[in-house]
Amino acid sequence: MIDPVALASRLIACPSVTPEDAGAIDVIAEALEAIGFTVHSFWAGDTPDGPVRNLFATRGQGGPHFAFAGHSDVVPAGPGWGTDPFTPVIRGDLLHGRGAVDMKGAVAAFIAAAARIPDHQGTLSLIITGDEEGPATHGTLALMAWMEERGIRPDLCLVGEPTSAHRLGDTIKIGRRGSVNMWIEVPGTQGHVAYPHLADNPAPRLIRILNELDGWTLDTGNRWFQPSNLEITDIAIGNPATNIIPGVARARLNIRFNDAHRGADLVEHVRQVVARHAPRGTVEARISGEAFLTEPGRLSTLVTDAIHRATGLEAELSTSGGTSDARFLSRLCPVVEFGLCNATMHKLDEAVAVADLHALTDIYADIITHALQG
Amino acid sequence: MIDPVALASRLIACPSVTPEDAGAIDVIAEALEAIGFTVHSFWAGDTPDGPVRNLFATRGQGGPHFAFAGHSDVVPAGPGWGTDPFTPVIRGDLLHGRGAVDMKGAVAAFIAAAARIPDHQGTLSLIITGDEEGPATHGTLALMAWMEERGIRPDLCLVGEPTSAHRLGDTIKIGRRGSVNMWIEVPGTQGHVAYPHLADNPAPRLIRILNELDGWTLDTGNRWFQPSNLEITDIAIGNPATNIIPGVARARLNIRFNDAHRGADLVEHVRQVVARHAPRGTVEARISGEAFLTEPGRLSTLVTDAIHRATGLEAELSTSGGTSDARFLSRLCPVVEFGLCNATMHKLDEAVAVADLHALTDIYADIITHALQG
Ligand SMILES: [Zn+2]
Ligand SMILES: [Zn+2]
Repeated sequence: MIDPVALASRLIACPSVTPEDAGAIDVIAEALEAIGFTVHSFWAGDTPDGPVRNLFATRGQGGPHFAFAGHSDVVPAGPGWGTDPFTPVIRGDLLHGRGAVDMKGAVAAFIAAAARIPDHQGTLSLIITGDEEGPATHGTLALMAWMEERGIRPDLCLVGEPTSAHRLGDTIKIGRRGSVNMWIEVPGTQGHVAYPHLADNPAPRLIRILNELDGWTLDTGNRWFQPSNLEITDIAIGNPATNIIPGVARARLNIRFNDAHRGADLVEHVRQVVARHAPRGTVEARISGEAFLTEPGRLSTLVTDAIHRATGLEAELSTSGGTSDARFLSRLCPVVEFGLCNATMHKLDEAVAVADLHALTDIYADIITHALQG
Repeated sequence: MIDPVALASRLIACPSVTPEDAGAIDVIAEALEAIGFTVHSFWAGDTPDGPVRNLFATRGQGGPHFAFAGHSDVVPAGPGWGTDPFTPVIRGDLLHGRGAVDMKGAVAAFIAAAARIPDHQGTLSLIITGDEEGPATHGTLALMAWMEERGIRPDLCLVGEPTSAHRLGDTIKIGRRGSVNMWIEVPGTQGHVAYPHLADNPAPRLIRILNELDGWTLDTGNRWFQPSNLEITDIAIGNPATNIIPGVARARLNIRFNDAHRGADLVEHVRQVVARHAPRGTVEARISGEAFLTEPGRLSTLVTDAIHRATGLEAELSTSGGTSDARFLSRLCPVVEFGLCNATMHKLDEAVAVADLHALTDIYADIITHALQG
């Protein structure tokens, strides 16, 4: 048997702030090898975003193939903690430390659960990256490329991100909105405010663009998703002179979009709006991830049933919040996300209830049982 | 007799970049004392905008009182000149040097013209500041305060700014638009783009404000003025993070307005627009100058008749362009502006035609004759 609290503590003690590994993957690898997993780990990428350490571990053979996915890296601690963020401390009912809920606690629970079910049909895998909190270019995508080369493809995947809100098991995620950032640039002709006919102020064009985009109703949401949302995140002209008409105006926006949209279509729409108001305007775009939805079905039921058995709760099926690596893994197979309570994630004094670590281990073990023995 | 070319050259040799005097006022004072003027010069203001040297010179007594006004300071030369900007050089028909047209040439012509008319009725004055190209806080306003303390008030004033466009005498200014800068700040509540309901993005409010202001028709102009014009000169949010909804949005605008408006009324209008779209928004304003108009009449006719006699041209009565110290002097008496060709003012290789300096002296002398002997 593996104690998830002890294992989570060993992981918290590794200051694995992205892209640092700080020994975290070794802790995971040793624990998995001890319970019969074949472990492969590798480094990917270069400075400044890497190198990043990734791990793929597998036990058993053939189908069905169930995978847990997660990450060993954490966001920086920041100042002001009540305890040292990389020294795990149990106070009262809480294990304190950076990564306690996001998501070293869940990774420990994956492993403790796997230790409890030594015999299962098919294949049980862990897909663990050290680059989820960073640019994510050398993490899950590198693991997926590695798996694809070897013909490895899970049938079902559970990502252990902290999805619970108030009580462990109150919420799982069956999808995520997509996200795209766009940079709009409107050139004009600089000049003196006293001679506007000799200049071409780009600010009014940019304002008309942003006014139209701000009034754009992308959709009204659907059964599983809230409405898509556009936010203007920056506007910059950068003209220090009060008597100068600026020569260029820029804005940046972010769209969080549901499965009614593809990122490329949104970019095309914005390009058309820009072209209408500013023929010389340009749009640079970066799609961080497409929206995905795992339609409620066998996988979500497997998870919500296990939650119900352990806690009595009926988990809500949510698609809210930010992006996660599930946006990548959803290309392989149905993916849901379920993990600890997220109240302290990315915050000061991140902490997990010790009881929740044990309960999460119970739930994950139940899921393995039903996924691979059902 | 005073040669305006020689005197302009002596002034160009003084690198009197605002607020430096660099000996320029002494050159002017000596020349004026030699032709019977009583000269008073004084320093005003402190660093960084000062100290600034100003000069008031007067000859004769009683009315009528005619004043020439101008400045001894120049804008910085900047790199790339074909000759040294503070070494006067005559090449072909042109006298080269910073200030040749704006407006050391005109100051030299004031003095050379005054030298030619040693006997006149009433009073002839020169109001010369070293702070026209800078903030203008310690220049003409300080001179006006000095004059007011002594009960000195001209009846007519000619400012020698370079008003001619293509040929000397083609344009005089009988007014100037006013100018006001405003800084709009719209506060919001910062947040994460994934949770817009927890944030309040100030960008859409600012865009609605700017959209309304951009569509505001202040007026359609009148007989003497072009339409008032609003330019958005800067927009700044300053948010580097793509996933953060910003907490504040700012913009700056400039209005050049004709005599249909007072600066304070424009500020009030903008405040109302801001309040409608952003109750917590604020507007800071700085009125650089009110619009003024010297209705065509005795003064403008004095100038245009003198131009016509010397050049055969019918000068256009204009109110276009930027602000000048005439906006202050117009509080005292009717003011018109007339001076050299402005094609090279504030530019590289500023230069004046030697023939224009002589012709301008002729015209100024004619104006003195008709103003004080007519
Ligand atoms: Zn995470
Ligand atoms: Zn000037």
